[in-house]
Amino acid sequence: MADEAPFQFLHNEVLQYIYKSAENGETDNGRNIAKLENMGFRVGQGLMERLTKDTARFKDELDIMKFVCKDFWTCVFKKQIDNLRTNHQGIYVLQDNKFRLLSQLSAGKQYLEQAPKYLAFTCGLVRGALSNLGVKSIVTAEVSVMPACKFQIMIQKM
Amino acid sequence: MADEAPFQFLHNEVLQYIYKSAENGETDNGRNIAKLENMGFRVGQGLMERLTKDTARFKDELDIMKFVCKDFWTCVFKKQIDNLRTNHQGIYVLQDNKFRLLSQLSAGKQYLEQAPKYLAFTCGLVRGALSNLGVKSIVTAEVSVMPACKFQIMIQKM
Repeated sequence: MADEAPFQFLHNEVLQYIYKSAENGETDNGRNIAKLENMGFRVGQGLMERLTKDTARFKDELDIMKFVCKDFWTCVFKKQIDNLRTNHQGIYVLQDNKFRLLSQLSAGKQYLEQAPKYLAFTCGLVRGALSNLGVKSIVTAEVSVMPACKFQIMIQKM
Repeated sequence: MADEAPFQFLHNEVLQYIYKSAENGETDNGRNIAKLENMGFRVGQGLMERLTKDTARFKDELDIMKFVCKDFWTCVFKKQIDNLRTNHQGIYVLQDNKFRLLSQLSAGKQYLEQAPKYLAFTCGLVRGALSNLGVKSIVTAEVSVMPACKFQIMIQKM
């Protein structure tokens, strides 16, 4: 029914809290984004740890990505990623056609400015989840048409 | 499987963030508790709003409490309240025998000091949920035997 709602509402509170408590105002945006990303990172690590407790070892990187798109995404957002693409050279694009954490943002044009702060936590979440499985990555996100959203993962080879 | 985990991990991050970002240290504990309580209040309001969208009107106060114990608690914590008591004069005690947000706290004796910060958000959550239904209350909590926990609700008559 509203299974993803508690997480969504809490995420929204966190966002507001971080932005309100920042004293340097606008210029601090980068720092706020980083805080949200870090918070997501730790949540992602912990969640992946718990989700894979009884899971068989993954075959390869693609197998890990499929797990993120299905099991991990469903655990957090109560739906799967709608589309997964890769160039087979360490870049993966995960598309969510109805990204829950954007649903409180109106579909007007101002979302273009606001979107990054609604996506930062989840970028960290994915990076943390992968990190827990020994995969180092850089994760960025962009809104295509609201509320669709693409997360790009660049694997960092050690 | 781990349906309550995203919320639980995020709650834990919020806790750590608020306590880390408080600069006045120990003496600020009351203010941190208040911040958590307020955050819970807003989440509770929003959640109750969403949960009761298509619900029939409640008969009375007790009917509201039962909804909090069953539907609301299940939405957030993936389990129901184990025991509801009332003195029929505006005091209700909700007991959760395995309160999720305490599960990351060890069962040692130091929990007695730590417990209030793990309970503050949920006190606010209940207060906010009731407030959304027009019921003004004061909510306090205490740990009996870890991880069992009692929430006491005192209805404030207008």
